[in-house]
Amino acid sequence: MKRLKQRILDEATVIGTEILKVDNFLNHQVDVEFLTEIGAEFYKRFGQEEVTKILTIESSGIAVACMTAPFFKTPVIFAKKIESRNLVDDTYSSEVYSYTKDKSYRVHVSRNYLSAQDKVLIIDDFLANGKAVQGLIDIVNQAGARLVGVGIVIEKGFQDGGNQLRKSGVKLESLAIISVMNEQEIIFKNGDPLRGE
Amino acid sequence: MKRLKQRILDEATVIGTEILKVDNFLNHQVDVEFLTEIGAEFYKRFGQEEVTKILTIESSGIAVACMTAPFFKTPVIFAKKIESRNLVDDTYSSEVYSYTKDKSYRVHVSRNYLSAQDKVLIIDDFLANGKAVQGLIDIVNQAGARLVGVGIVIEKGFQDGGNQLRKSGVKLESLAIISVMNEQEIIFKNGDPLRGE
Repeated sequence: MKRLKQRILDEATVIGTEILKVDNFLNHQVDVEFLTEIGAEFYKRFGQEEVTKILTIESSGIAVACMTAPFFKTPVIFAKKIESRNLVDDTYSSEVYSYTKDKSYRVHVSRNYLSAQDKVLIIDDFLANGKAVQGLIDIVNQAGARLVGVGIVIEKGFQDGGNQLRKSGVKLESLAIISVMNEQEIIFKNGDPLRGE
Repeated sequence: MKRLKQRILDEATVIGTEILKVDNFLNHQVDVEFLTEIGAEFYKRFGQEEVTKILTIESSGIAVACMTAPFFKTPVIFAKKIESRNLVDDTYSSEVYSYTKDKSYRVHVSRNYLSAQDKVLIIDDFLANGKAVQGLIDIVNQAGARLVGVGIVIEKGFQDGGNQLRKSGVKLESLAIISVMNEQEIIFKNGDPLRGE
């Protein structure tokens, strides 16, 4: 998605080789008009399939999912993060390891809101190691629901999550895939017309 | 807001005398179409004033704020919760005590996204003791910005937060104010046409 890549080049800050800050429009300040364009793009990529629920994870997935859902005319479910060992009844749950925080937490979705009849599109802001998305897929499977696909705003293509998902046959659509980033440059995946300088 | 009160009566679960679960449309599963009606209602109540930023707090305020912002054509900023003693540079921050969790956390907003030129509408899903909203107001004041008002979906009118805000002169608009709730009934504030049975 060209305009997204341009905004990443113009507005993102890279810290070290792992952290991409897009607080200006995605993760802290939210440009809802731009996120509506992102939602339209997800609809272009997944709208030919029937989707009954959009599933995301708190917190920063919520905004993208909410601006995407009106195109699909579905509710959003945001999985709740609860640190391990806090048991919650009547949920599907999965353990997720966070590399950035070096700890595990569980994500929970109430059994009331996902069932075997559901066709689920997972939406999230970032994909890196893919552990959060794998936790959500685990929950979709526990519910016996069908996974339609995974829509990601920014994929860190230099980490392994995206490739693992593609290999496992998941329909993954990432609107921007970064292959190299550091404090000097951001380079998108081959074939993309935009490059950092 | 009549339809909101009806949905609370039809769909909410009261646990004890303090917890109102509206996971079906607001806090876990999000009915984005209904939240757009809620956004329209906030616009009816605050749209006559100039608003440049909508400020909320992660996680469950994000969905409501995002579905409200398109009416005002403003970005959303969601304050980040970080447990006390994690210092973060270049932010406005305020300490918030959570009664439900019996611990304090700090909320942070980057100095890049709020300034003395801003006219801020605070939006949140719930108001009870009002500590979270007071933390956000503190941040608005630190930025030297002007507080236009506070829009709340559900106010627990039997707790003190709303009255304290009104007494301090804040323009507070709560779309449903609950005066009594328990496992048998939910009663809205006097003058509201709907009552639980």
